[in-house]
Amino acid sequence: MSLIASTGFAEASNAPARPNAEDGAPSARQNSGDGFASARRMADAIRFLALDAIAKAEDGHPGAPLGGAELATALFTRHLKCNPADPAWFDRDRFVLSNGHGSMLLYAVLHLAGYAGMPTEEIRHFRELGAHTHGHPERDVALGIEVTTGPLGQGIANAVGMAVAEAFLSATYGPELVDHRTYAVVGDGCLMEGVAHEVISLAGHLKLGKLTFLWDDNRMTDDGGTDFAISEDVRARFRIAGWQVIDADGHDVEAVSAALTLANKDPRPTMIACATVLGKGLPRLEGKRGAHGGRVFPEDVVEARAAAGWTHGPFEVPQDVAAAWQAGAADRNRPAYDAWQARVAALPADMRAEFERLIRGDLPAGVLPTLAAHAEALAIAAPAQSSNQSTADIVDLLAGLVPELLPGAPDLEGPTNCKRGLDAFTAQNLAGRYIHYGIREHAMGSMMNGMVAHGGVLPLGATYLVFSDYMRPPLRMSALMELPVITLYSHDSIGIGKNGPTHQPVEFLASLRAMPNMAVFRPADAVETAECWQLALARRDGPSSIICSRQALPAQRRDASENRSARGAYVLRAAEGGPRRVTLIATGSEVDVAVRARDLLQAEGIPTAVVSMPCWEIFEQQDEAYVWEVLGPGTVRVAVEAAVKLGWERWIGADGAFVGMHGFGASGPADELFRHFGITPAAVADAARARL
Amino acid sequence: MSLIASTGFAEASNAPARPNAEDGAPSARQNSGDGFASARRMADAIRFLALDAIAKAEDGHPGAPLGGAELATALFTRHLKCNPADPAWFDRDRFVLSNGHGSMLLYAVLHLAGYAGMPTEEIRHFRELGAHTHGHPERDVALGIEVTTGPLGQGIANAVGMAVAEAFLSATYGPELVDHRTYAVVGDGCLMEGVAHEVISLAGHLKLGKLTFLWDDNRMTDDGGTDFAISEDVRARFRIAGWQVIDADGHDVEAVSAALTLANKDPRPTMIACATVLGKGLPRLEGKRGAHGGRVFPEDVVEARAAAGWTHGPFEVPQDVAAAWQAGAADRNRPAYDAWQARVAALPADMRAEFERLIRGDLPAGVLPTLAAHAEALAIAAPAQSSNQSTADIVDLLAGLVPELLPGAPDLEGPTNCKRGLDAFTAQNLAGRYIHYGIREHAMGSMMNGMVAHGGVLPLGATYLVFSDYMRPPLRMSALMELPVITLYSHDSIGIGKNGPTHQPVEFLASLRAMPNMAVFRPADAVETAECWQLALARRDGPSSIICSRQALPAQRRDASENRSARGAYVLRAAEGGPRRVTLIATGSEVDVAVRARDLLQAEGIPTAVVSMPCWEIFEQQDEAYVWEVLGPGTVRVAVEAAVKLGWERWIGADGAFVGMHGFGASGPADELFRHFGITPAAVADAARARL
Repeated sequence: MSLIASTGFAEASNAPARPNAEDGAPSARQNSGDGFASARRMADAIRFLALDAIAKAEDGHPGAPLGGAELATALFTRHLKCNPADPAWFDRDRFVLSNGHGSMLLYAVLHLAGYAGMPTEEIRHFRELGAHTHGHPERDVALGIEVTTGPLGQGIANAVGMAVAEAFLSATYGPELVDHRTYAVVGDGCLMEGVAHEVISLAGHLKLGKLTFLWDDNRMTDDGGTDFAISEDVRARFRIAGWQVIDADGHDVEAVSAALTLANKDPRPTMIACATVLGKGLPRLEGKRGAHGGRVFPEDVVEARAAAGWTHGPFEVPQDVAAAWQAGAADRNRPAYDAWQARVAALPADMRAEFERLIRGDLPAGVLPTLAAHAEALAIAAPAQSSNQSTADIVDLLAGLVPELLPGAPDLEGPTNCKRGLDAFTAQNLAGRYIHYGIREHAMGSMMNGMVAHGGVLPLGATYLVFSDYMRPPLRMSALMELPVITLYSHDSIGIGKNGPTHQPVEFLASLRAMPNMAVFRPADAVETAECWQLALARRDGPSSIICSRQALPAQRRDASENRSARGAYVLRAAEGGPRRVTLIATGSEVDVAVRARDLLQAEGIPTAVVSMPCWEIFEQQDEAYVWEVLGPGTVRVAVEAAVKLGWERWIGADGAFVGMHGFGASGPADELFRHFGITPAAVADAARARL
Repeated sequence: MSLIASTGFAEASNAPARPNAEDGAPSARQNSGDGFASARRMADAIRFLALDAIAKAEDGHPGAPLGGAELATALFTRHLKCNPADPAWFDRDRFVLSNGHGSMLLYAVLHLAGYAGMPTEEIRHFRELGAHTHGHPERDVALGIEVTTGPLGQGIANAVGMAVAEAFLSATYGPELVDHRTYAVVGDGCLMEGVAHEVISLAGHLKLGKLTFLWDDNRMTDDGGTDFAISEDVRARFRIAGWQVIDADGHDVEAVSAALTLANKDPRPTMIACATVLGKGLPRLEGKRGAHGGRVFPEDVVEARAAAGWTHGPFEVPQDVAAAWQAGAADRNRPAYDAWQARVAALPADMRAEFERLIRGDLPAGVLPTLAAHAEALAIAAPAQSSNQSTADIVDLLAGLVPELLPGAPDLEGPTNCKRGLDAFTAQNLAGRYIHYGIREHAMGSMMNGMVAHGGVLPLGATYLVFSDYMRPPLRMSALMELPVITLYSHDSIGIGKNGPTHQPVEFLASLRAMPNMAVFRPADAVETAECWQLALARRDGPSSIICSRQALPAQRRDASENRSARGAYVLRAAEGGPRRVTLIATGSEVDVAVRARDLLQAEGIPTAVVSMPCWEIFEQQDEAYVWEVLGPGTVRVAVEAAVKLGWERWIGADGAFVGMHGFGASGPADELFRHFGITPAAVADAARARL
């Protein structure tokens, strides 16, 4: 049981009925009453907003918005729980357009549904610099855009992460507070990507019954028919993974809506195979390869209008259509929204405060001070242990303090020591907190993005540093979306030893540092590990990579009264016996190499300082005076890192030396490898002396 | 039809019978005659070599070698076509241990099969620095190791690539010359990785009938039972993808062998589900989670010996076992080997020379001179076109000159312009040359590694630069294996415009440059593109990334009499009117920005040189005198690249300026974006002036 369950959240009564089509008047009204447009017109409104925008931009992808117009109409006007007047409503259903190139589908729907951030002006300026109608959707909850999509497969996996977050929160805090569904529109490209299979398999295993995919089954890709590259039965693939599969005519709003109702009633996740025509309604390109992303000319739009009998002007939404969308998207949901607000307002004060903390994404009040105290205790205890172990101890600590912490280490729970006695999150125990991702790093990365985008949970992923390459696409997306996703990477260098070069990272520090908005932490000992954790947990506008050793690291810091890592780099050992002549700069396990090199140099009377630099990105933000105080202008500078040199010139200058790796590692005992590759105190001292 | 088919290769007669168990005496003899060990003893020999080595190393993974002993015995002594005395025999079957952590399975088998490079001494020094018995297998064809494996999923996909190479070569050159099978032992981890699903789907679609997976179905992972993370029917997953699936007792050599015979007879790829026990024969750990990679103590080995009745000493192979392995692995294959050699020797001289060229991996003689002439023609024509188009033209040229060229662009054939009229490689036309990978970049990367490791084909993969992240694990493996795999990345910067930051690379040049042994080419115009292609094609010991623009690039080079890119960087425009005061360094599309900035500075009387630097890695290898001649010591240096700065300090020094990207891009027209992000001639000139 989670800690919070004992506060009474989990005893909440069953969830209220959903505001779906079958429940009452609004949806029936759309097709019957005076003044309300037919479903077909509601969908055509999407179609012509998309066509007008794409034609005006002279760029964009018409195929998906036109092919998906009916399924989006069915979903948004009859099923999706949302409040366009309060886009961030926590208990809203989440919607992901996984085939993000069809961005105009989303923008048109948000406009029609009445999201204030998506007025006609935004649609008119589709793909223009400064508009919010970017080429691909970019996360902006205030606009109704849950995640950035475009790189295929990411959105699908984000949706599975969102469904995990919802399932955990609903099981833990009760369906009166959390009870919503996750929907994703997915294309053939999304489904062919490997990460899709990872999450399809896992979602079925976890029985994420509130997850529904709408497959835009148009049998066409940019290269031509899907049969160029796939012949497997996609429906069967979902079924054997434990999904409900429903077929529907994707251009029949009623059929899609009926399928969505069936999805709501089944305990399994559901895939609705919506048979669609790519670029439906665009006569010249309809059903053809060129509809995917081909140019739409003004005459195409004229032709499409004639074919559909759409008599309205460019970007114009006729009143009957607007009214029907208002009824379907906004009015339909108002009672559920108001009822939820009332339930939250009626919570006892402490429970309400806790729930609102979760929604804000704040840590419990005591967490950062506890970590600071932990660092001070470590400064006294001075353990010589791997930073992997130091991190595992912190995950332990956090597990007891942060009830929404959901760790997971794809098949490396043992080596990363990252489970720490939590119950597993399973189909039978959705309040469990350890996530068994299986051997699926890419899924973990993309799902964590979805979980953090969803809110209310704090996932912690752990794997070996070399396997970060498997999740590089979602790492990039977390950086781009400014999502505070924390990943722990252990086994960070040749220090892993005998497993050899396949498992020895050498280029990963550089490749992670290359990524904008990624904070890369590589702590030197237990105290720095605790400091870096404080910084990563406090970071709210981007992801953090905490990079740890397998091998034991001697204690370097005996004082933790100040979080010295908070400036990115600092003088760990000052020069003695005169003005500083040498500055040794290192990170992680090589800080000890630098400290021992300093001993050699000091013994020769060469005043030498050691700089520990656990986070380049933070150090880069410091004022110039501090930077130079640390780097020691005019001193000989030597960097030490068991990784490639790329980027180190920034800190050592043109004349500095670098002691590190110049290629891949080798299989052998760790200590022999450090000697073999010349990453030793003697080599560092030599490099310094050669420049004096 | 390929060009080469007309030489008569394709008319070769049917393939000879395979030297399999069912065909004759050798395998029967193993279990009947005097002096030959039973299949159980043959497998136990693997088991105890593995246990002795792992116990001595005090490190390693016992589970897979012990669990896979029988299936390896069945494969290597009854089915695999190989010649331990000539490990590089081109028509050998290919074997991939996809679960590379079980490396001792492979080493033991190679030792028993009589590979000279794997003597007892190597086994004794398992995981020691300097031995060839690395923690994970590292490609070394002379030893019998086809590919480096360890990162899960890679080996599976390599095997599919090998099967593609074989199928193409067999269809093109005839089964008398090329007719072999590809086998992979795959674990649960391999199968859970997304890339596995990508290639399972594609291999079934392509009906790669000579491909067989042996699934080590032990229902256990490092984290515990597979049911923690998967409940789908793995067999069904293969079946719906078009595979034959056979169940076999993985500890019954006869059963596995019978399944392998069935695999040979079916036109589909085959997955043999071998029910095994992880760590079989290691009483303390057998079937348990700890068997995966847990420590093996001397007393464990004593206990295992007692349980098996294995009375031989450490690392000892009894004579009857050695004889049975010699008969099964070496003698059985000798007739097939000799017959193949005779067929090759009997080829007409020109066909033989061509076939031997393929095996060596040499380009046809005229290719590089033709590209040089192409560059000279471009220097005269001076087209202003995208480097993507320049590359597409070269792929066109190469397609006509290199019959083994197999291009493919996952669903980006249109934008990368990389199909160029070749027939598709399909189940119905295995001599086709364009590979429809589907929307599966990871599969492409890993399959290309397998194709190049196989030999005889030259795959060319093409995708957008941002999607290189999806294939980063295989890129790393190609660099580590020193495989000359060429990938073309188009749409290389904010120059792609309106598709926005999801599709605009900013960190990729740095992250690719960070990878050891990866040559990163970013040509500035059509001439440089042709030069870089010559360099990439000539490179034999590592992968190349050729990075191209979507937008048109003005011609910079009007002289191609010398391949100036061959030094990595060179002075494209010399300073005029006095000693050089400013050096502008750029790559790719930003060379033109630098050239126009130079015009501004020269107009003010500031002698300014422009350095084009298409390949850092090559420039780093030049002598110091040349490097400084290019970089201009004492001059103000400004680098221009529409990407992050990381690493540029190497070339501009501590005082230089960098004009480029400082974060992610944005959605808008390309020219507006360059202005928005300040990558303009005026900004470059300003940066230079500020430092004069």
